Amino acid sequence: MASPEIEALTQALSRLPGLGPRSARRAVLHLLKKRETALEPLLSALGAVSQRLSTCQVCGNVDTLDPCAICADPRRDARALCVVEEVADLWALDRARLFPGKFHVLGGRLSALEGVRPEDLRIDSLVRRVSGGGVDEVVLAMNATLDGQTTAHYVAERLETYPVRITQLAHGLPVGGELDYLDEGTLAQALRARRPVA
Amino acid sequence: MASPEIEALTQALSRLPGLGPRSARRAVLHLLKKRETALEPLLSALGAVSQRLSTCQVCGNVDTLDPCAICADPRRDARALCVVEEVADLWALDRARLFPGKFHVLGGRLSALEGVRPEDLRIDSLVRRVSGGGVDEVVLAMNATLDGQTTAHYVAERLETYPVRITQLAHGLPVGGELDYLDEGTLAQALRARRPVA
Repeated sequence: MASPEIEALTQALSRLPGLGPRSARRAVLHLLKKRETALEPLLSALGAVSQRLSTCQVCGNVDTLDPCAICADPRRDARALCVVEEVADLWALDRARLFPGKFHVLGGRLSALEGVRPEDLRIDSLVRRVSGGGVDEVVLAMNATLDGQTTAHYVAERLETYPVRITQLAHGLPVGGELDYLDEGTLAQALRARRPVA
Repeated sequence: MASPEIEALTQALSRLPGLGPRSARRAVLHLLKKRETALEPLLSALGAVSQRLSTCQVCGNVDTLDPCAICADPRRDARALCVVEEVADLWALDRARLFPGKFHVLGGRLSALEGVRPEDLRIDSLVRRVSGGGVDEVVLAMNATLDGQTTAHYVAERLETYPVRITQLAHGLPVGGELDYLDEGTLAQALRARRPVA
């Protein structure tokens, strides 16, 4: 019985990850009740993003700037390049503020099953960035999945003729991980990569 | 490191009920990636609602129409009036499509603790609707809480001089409720309101 406009808003919200029809309805009610403090700020924030949104021509990040804020930041070390599958991965690593260098977003992972080939990813532009010089290290930060690791291998091969150090995120026990609950694959990796106690 | 516009959007989304900072960030990423199918529809839906949003002068519902779609619907029985605390309650009852009459939203509940007095609620306008005639039954559908029941009592008193039947939602076992897990209050209500087996 809600009006078509409210129905459309509920539909649009319910398609966001993490929101179903029920929570979208609750969110809409919240927006309707808090017009000044919730609806209008969200509307103007969405409008601003929609107007300026673009994909960074350098690294593949999505941002309202091009080059993106990370590529444009002079305090970041351009000699270290972290390659990730998706923009979400870039954000996750950047949120932790652990990597002081720049990023390169492939836009996916190689997958025979899903028919994703090298030319579907931003690999050529990565090779161009590296071949242009000025890069000392490329950190491969793909997911620890079969497709992620296949992609990492392929990228490493494409870069092996250039004078850069190619590294990969360590695999092993997650912080707080209890041996008893971890899968065999993780345990095997942790064992294989074991290190001398300092 | 995200741009201020994206930061503002994440903030605005994270204030919605059911979304925290983490899921808001995921939602923003989804919006950025699916610009045509997610961001633009949400933006235009929000804009349409923002432009037309109003509180129904008759019943207190929020809608893009005034009188709201429910008040304007001629198929609904105007002789039965269901009184609820909040717009969310109206939506919940209307979603179940069980009540064929019209509604009246009080906009809250009486509460000594929170300092909500009768004049803070839409009670006078309810009395005017009833005193105007044409209403046979008023269904009090307040929450089964102390404040809700206090409000129901007060509203019933205010309406007792008018020739209307005043009823209240039944209290008892919820569908699927197991005695073992129900609180004593519910059990006591269910026992007190027991009915002969047909």
